[in-house]
Amino acid sequence: MTSLGPNRYGKSAIRLGKVDRRPDGHRVRDLTVAIALEGDFAASYVEADNSLVVATDTMKNTTYALAGEGLTGPIEGFAEVLGRHFLRDPQVDRATVTIEEFAWRPIGSAPDAFVRDRTSTRTCAVACARDGGVVIDAGIADLVVMKTSKSAFSGFPRDEYTTLAETDARLLATKVSAVWRYDAGIDVDYDASFERVTGTLLDVFAEHHSESVQASIWIVGKAIVERHPEVLEVTMTLPNLHHWLADVERFGVANDRQVYVSTTEPHGLIQATVRRD
Amino acid sequence: MTSLGPNRYGKSAIRLGKVDRRPDGHRVRDLTVAIALEGDFAASYVEADNSLVVATDTMKNTTYALAGEGLTGPIEGFAEVLGRHFLRDPQVDRATVTIEEFAWRPIGSAPDAFVRDRTSTRTCAVACARDGGVVIDAGIADLVVMKTSKSAFSGFPRDEYTTLAETDARLLATKVSAVWRYDAGIDVDYDASFERVTGTLLDVFAEHHSESVQASIWIVGKAIVERHPEVLEVTMTLPNLHHWLADVERFGVANDRQVYVSTTEPHGLIQATVRRD
Amino acid sequence: MTSLGPNRYGKSAIRLGKVDRRPDGHRVRDLTVAIALEGDFAASYVEADNSLVVATDTMKNTTYALAGEGLTGPIEGFAEVLGRHFLRDPQVDRATVTIEEFAWRPIGSAPDAFVRDRTSTRTCAVACARDGGVVIDAGIADLVVMKTSKSAFSGFPRDEYTTLAETDARLLATKVSAVWRYDAGIDVDYDASFERVTGTLLDVFAEHHSESVQASIWIVGKAIVERHPEVLEVTMTLPNLHHWLADVERFGVANDRQVYVSTTEPHGLIQATVRRD
Amino acid sequence: MTSLGPNRYGKSAIRLGKVDRRPDGHRVRDLTVAIALEGDFAASYVEADNSLVVATDTMKNTTYALAGEGLTGPIEGFAEVLGRHFLRDPQVDRATVTIEEFAWRPIGSAPDAFVRDRTSTRTCAVACARDGGVVIDAGIADLVVMKTSKSAFSGFPRDEYTTLAETDARLLATKVSAVWRYDAGIDVDYDASFERVTGTLLDVFAEHHSESVQASIWIVGKAIVERHPEVLEVTMTLPNLHHWLADVERFGVANDRQVYVSTTEPHGLIQATVRRD
Repeated sequence: MTSLGPNRYGKSAIRLGKVDRRPDGHRVRDLTVAIALEGDFAASYVEADNSLVVATDTMKNTTYALAGEGLTGPIEGFAEVLGRHFLRDPQVDRATVTIEEFAWRPIGSAPDAFVRDRTSTRTCAVACARDGGVVIDAGIADLVVMKTSKSAFSGFPRDEYTTLAETDARLLATKVSAVWRYDAGIDVDYDASFERVTGTLLDVFAEHHSESVQASIWIVGKAIVERHPEVLEVTMTLPNLHHWLADVERFGVANDRQVYVSTTEPHGLIQATVRRD
Repeated sequence: MTSLGPNRYGKSAIRLGKVDRRPDGHRVRDLTVAIALEGDFAASYVEADNSLVVATDTMKNTTYALAGEGLTGPIEGFAEVLGRHFLRDPQVDRATVTIEEFAWRPIGSAPDAFVRDRTSTRTCAVACARDGGVVIDAGIADLVVMKTSKSAFSGFPRDEYTTLAETDARLLATKVSAVWRYDAGIDVDYDASFERVTGTLLDVFAEHHSESVQASIWIVGKAIVERHPEVLEVTMTLPNLHHWLADVERFGVANDRQVYVSTTEPHGLIQATVRRD
Repeated sequence: MTSLGPNRYGKSAIRLGKVDRRPDGHRVRDLTVAIALEGDFAASYVEADNSLVVATDTMKNTTYALAGEGLTGPIEGFAEVLGRHFLRDPQVDRATVTIEEFAWRPIGSAPDAFVRDRTSTRTCAVACARDGGVVIDAGIADLVVMKTSKSAFSGFPRDEYTTLAETDARLLATKVSAVWRYDAGIDVDYDASFERVTGTLLDVFAEHHSESVQASIWIVGKAIVERHPEVLEVTMTLPNLHHWLADVERFGVANDRQVYVSTTEPHGLIQATVRRD
Repeated sequence: MTSLGPNRYGKSAIRLGKVDRRPDGHRVRDLTVAIALEGDFAASYVEADNSLVVATDTMKNTTYALAGEGLTGPIEGFAEVLGRHFLRDPQVDRATVTIEEFAWRPIGSAPDAFVRDRTSTRTCAVACARDGGVVIDAGIADLVVMKTSKSAFSGFPRDEYTTLAETDARLLATKVSAVWRYDAGIDVDYDASFERVTGTLLDVFAEHHSESVQASIWIVGKAIVERHPEVLEVTMTLPNLHHWLADVERFGVANDRQVYVSTTEPHGLIQATVRRD
């Protein structure tokens, strides 16, 4: 017997811009939206019966149609508006809306000219369930950071294939992806919380002594969970973007942790969740 | 209380080339390897204790060191060699080795010149557990296919945001990602099985009438599971790379399903698993 | 005084699919088209006068509108159709149409199912001038090739920063971009010539002994020019995608040109033109 | 007769990091360097004679070796140090060094922690010739900007394929690439000039009324040339990243220039040079 296992479908890469044309200056919103539905869709696979299949083209149209009134605050709110909309159809058990938001900031004091700030991407994933439950994850991605001191890596085991030197002074660079889950029992101001959590992330990253990427995840993640009661847990995924000290001493050139070879391949990759018990 | 949740770490993007210099012609292997370990690593996070942390640099060295003797057959075998190697360390509970292989084929009858065939990427993910269990997933990615007839989409519900026309003749294009799990109780010839499974995938994709991407996943997935006893289940992830009929009739130009606007954004995305019960 | 210097404008990234629905089997065309105009456009810059500016949106529409009748043979022909069309407007001195074509091949013997063959991209750039002159460049891009023997690099000068060892047996890999210009005085069958020229490129790449990427460009380019009278000159741009022998002998593991570290950064880059005098 | 035409070779994608460890706070430099040589290299092609071929690997080593003392100020200075170095070899007629610099800014007041600011990339291309001449181009790339008002496009010609509506209120977005050439007769403070020129670019982009991308290039370019006497000319390449008003009025939803469909394909592309006569 062959059967259908887990399945989901939806629309991805819906690119949406919005301009709030306020008298005192415009505000630009720049989103990529993805919608995924789960529910009573087995017949669409097994029997080629499309009678319950909300077309993904309709999902796209709906996203643009609801953006005028639905996207007036944080992306978490718009994601929930969209998610609840698709629960209108009884065959949907869960609607998950994922949004990436790209930042634009005004050029000088201009009310209507903007530059895209690509320093990081704000994200959310909001899952709305038939039973009324809503799970809200927020996050930050594409945030590239570096520590030029207070970073070490030593005390690791050595075997026949180990060549890495122990160091108490390595350059540490990584591209942060962090996702945190909000406590559904707390009324959260998503914009303010995003600023606070990412502020903690950056501050603690800057201040702490790193003994490893693992230890850094723990220290940063612990601070996020402990300082922000609305956060239940945070998952960080950190590639180690290795910078190797350039071997120029063979040319008689001193290199006291000045000149580095920046690399992307291969890279360490460390992922962990830190949570409130 | 704050605690450490799920965690894993390892090395990614290890780029490895190998040349088997056989008298009757060389064979080129071109792999990207990723290694991830899970186990007793909490102290490395919580206490900054690196004494059990196999350095990811060591993982990289090990991959190259073991490739000479370990990479003589299919990637599944090399992944298992690497996975079992890292289980040597008792703190490791599970070692997962993921490999992508890029194909090169000889130029004409040359024994030592090759062109990279980027038509698809072969993949595997082999998870070796402390208890001796090995879970082997194989797959194909980056395979872009198209049906220029025998593809329809109709009978879907219409609401106030639905504008998509029903059609019994649409162009269907997708970039296939498929991952199938092998039955651990069957002795599998991985190279032969890969060829057979991807052959089935392509043949059934070509032959069947598609009523939707969902229905296509079921028909193709069912064929894979039912024709290949070594496959327990297959998961397919299919973006719908929409090709819209170019609206040139407004210029007085006929367009009987000839000229299309190819798009990538936005795209439908359908994912499902088909399995043997 | 400030003045306007060289300028051009147009539409890029026009994605066009076409299906020739022949009784004995379909044929899929998959193109990315770019159009650039030069001419009497100074007023559009200096005086903000748009009265002579063919809208780039119109260029896009035109591309789709003319594809039905204009795209029945090689891309060079369609590019010329488009180029001549835009010369209809007297302010245009030169219209350059650049096309990339992506290959699709039938799945088995299916008449209506295809897989995209990403082994290489065919290109052309056709410049149509007011005076009736047409310059036709054809090319191939994204073709990744490798020689596992018959490749050396030695005899180069050594200075205080030279560490590279001389070798008579290195692995040579590159991603070929080649552009050749057709003799306007010869009636060319573009499809046949493309096949012949790329055949020569691959054959000579495979057969020759390479003393350097430079020497390879000369040998391959000379063969193209000398074997194909319709080709006036060919320009090749070859990155050297270095594969370094993995240093595993430090682990007591033999490595007789078997195991390599594949890299993309940094890479050599060699570009030269070979021409008929 | 077959002969060698224009040719150049060198090393690209040399990734270099540098940390200036000043007592009052570190400064991070993050560069991608490319070197290209032209000169008496015909023998390396035609005769496979490598005796004059500076190995590209040596170029890479040299870049790292000279960075300690050579990279203490603006990238233009380091590029000239490298360019002059390679002119040491008499077979080199011209050495062109291209550098991209990626910005990092401190996290808060931390002296040793940084976040990468990906808002734009600073570039330069310095060509050092045998005769002592040095041509210095500076530039900015990857700068994505938008005007939400003061942008129109109307008065363009209409033909049988024109469907674009005239508008006095369109959203204008583009990804700026600008390259300007410095007057060799003026002693330039490259860092200060870069700030001033990009300041002018952003200010004028924000302030002006745009009648087209062409008119914007002229207005911005003219301001750059006229306000900055050290700049001889500036070339701008501006894709038109179209944002189409979302057609939601068909759903009974108002959309007074609020909600847009953001697109990347196809896109207008306008390039022009503005210069001092």
